[in-house]
Amino acid sequence: MSIVVVGSVALDSVETPFGKVENALGGSATFFSVAASFFTKDIKLVAIVGEDFPQEHIDFLKSRGIDLKGLERVSGKTFHWKGQYGENLGIARTLATELNVFEKFAPKLPESYRKSEFVFLANINPELQMDVLKQVRESKLIICDTMNLWISERKKELLETIKNVDILVLNDAEARQLTGDSNLTKAAKKILSYGPKRIIIKAGQYGAMTFSETSFFAAPAYPLEQVIDTTGAGDTFAGGFVGYLASTGDVSESSVRKAILYGTVMASFNVQDFSLNRQRILTRSEIDSRFAEMKAMFEL
Amino acid sequence: MSIVVVGSVALDSVETPFGKVENALGGSATFFSVAASFFTKDIKLVAIVGEDFPQEHIDFLKSRGIDLKGLERVSGKTFHWKGQYGENLGIARTLATELNVFEKFAPKLPESYRKSEFVFLANINPELQMDVLKQVRESKLIICDTMNLWISERKKELLETIKNVDILVLNDAEARQLTGDSNLTKAAKKILSYGPKRIIIKAGQYGAMTFSETSFFAAPAYPLEQVIDTTGAGDTFAGGFVGYLASTGDVSESSVRKAILYGTVMASFNVQDFSLNRQRILTRSEIDSRFAEMKAMFEL
Repeated sequence: MSIVVVGSVALDSVETPFGKVENALGGSATFFSVAASFFTKDIKLVAIVGEDFPQEHIDFLKSRGIDLKGLERVSGKTFHWKGQYGENLGIARTLATELNVFEKFAPKLPESYRKSEFVFLANINPELQMDVLKQVRESKLIICDTMNLWISERKKELLETIKNVDILVLNDAEARQLTGDSNLTKAAKKILSYGPKRIIIKAGQYGAMTFSETSFFAAPAYPLEQVIDTTGAGDTFAGGFVGYLASTGDVSESSVRKAILYGTVMASFNVQDFSLNRQRILTRSEIDSRFAEMKAMFEL
Repeated sequence: MSIVVVGSVALDSVETPFGKVENALGGSATFFSVAASFFTKDIKLVAIVGEDFPQEHIDFLKSRGIDLKGLERVSGKTFHWKGQYGENLGIARTLATELNVFEKFAPKLPESYRKSEFVFLANINPELQMDVLKQVRESKLIICDTMNLWISERKKELLETIKNVDILVLNDAEARQLTGDSNLTKAAKKILSYGPKRIIIKAGQYGAMTFSETSFFAAPAYPLEQVIDTTGAGDTFAGGFVGYLASTGDVSESSVRKAILYGTVMASFNVQDFSLNRQRILTRSEIDSRFAEMKAMFEL
């Protein structure tokens, strides 16, 4: 089945204790769609870049089979994020956020995108997320991400968006911020009362958990002794998660659980190198092998 | 099989956002042995109390079938801990630690204790833990807990103890403090290199994980919307864990995984009330029912 993803395509400058990159390929829609492309070839991307965006990145995304009809190219500079991580790679310090052309982003879905069964609203202004929802038809599953900025600055609009999605994906700090509850179970139940059928809470090294009204499931992070750069890990997780669901068309509890393991596996590869460098050389058999390892962790 | 536990029996004064208790039954050996008593009736406790220790607590421990031959009663006051928890019940603020008779604690194992197959060294000075190890014979499995105080004040002695145990149990902050690594996988591998065959890292709301040289397993916390008091949760987890292993005599990977689920279940009951109040009315069928729920979380 087809996936439409709306988010950012960016150039990132990132420094961690293990090195740094300048103007490397990044952005939520990028990480998401590249991860999903290992599961399905029907991925439609909506984003905006400036005239400085390198052709090689376009070529890379095309080589992954991603439909770029919805990638607007306008005059000006591409969204640029500059961040730094300390020893604990869980928390980035943002040094600069240059929105550039992203400031004028008004997602317009090409006609061929509007009947996609799966819709991923990456972390953008919730008002734009709502605009996207008005453009989709016949969607089977709408998945939404967000961030602390929108929780503090656009809470009303965010709650309106959340009300209209099937699955909300956020991290533990965001779940606490959104609800005011430090108990994650309580926070999750409260968020479910806002409208979504399911919430996925990502917790970095501690893995991810998901709550619906009737079920609970948690998966540990894939254990890695060496983590290089966590930029894009959340979007890569979402890409593996939605990519797997779209490849099977099955959104049952059992399928969602496997999808969370695939999301976990994809995120584990992502953090082993800067930008999307690990994904560039990643093979399906490596994914399957790590998935088998994850499955073995569930044997009692 | 038989378990010997060496640790504290204390009186706790605890305040949380949900209420408070004064001079309630507490102590690492207490929480541990009561939890274990739901799995096996051969539990031998070594601890020290003062003349103020209420007979009703002795009667309660006896009613759980716990052997108190090793519980010394001396003149003076019982170890008293006073703590306060904020909204996030993960972190206690210690208001007072009155060691009292605990200062003179020199664990002496009655002859009938020395051949116990399972030995749990609760969180006490690592020098005393080593003294205990010198007194046990024919042990099948030695499990050891510790705390931040000993990592900072008695690191050399602690490393000597760790070298001589089979399983080290600590929390995520302690694993990081002991190794200087914020990456828990890296921290766990480093601790394994110190000698133990297995490490269990407890992470509160995020559950627990265990590493051996060849295996990795993680279990989420049992999801609870309302947590009243987390005092003793770690020792209760250990009690369920060791109690289950001792009840089967099987220490294989598969048995250890089930034991971690039982530890998780016991801890989940403990945090639902102050002191050991929940345990006083707990039934085996309630434990089995929550264990079945945990098992269902592992179905893919």
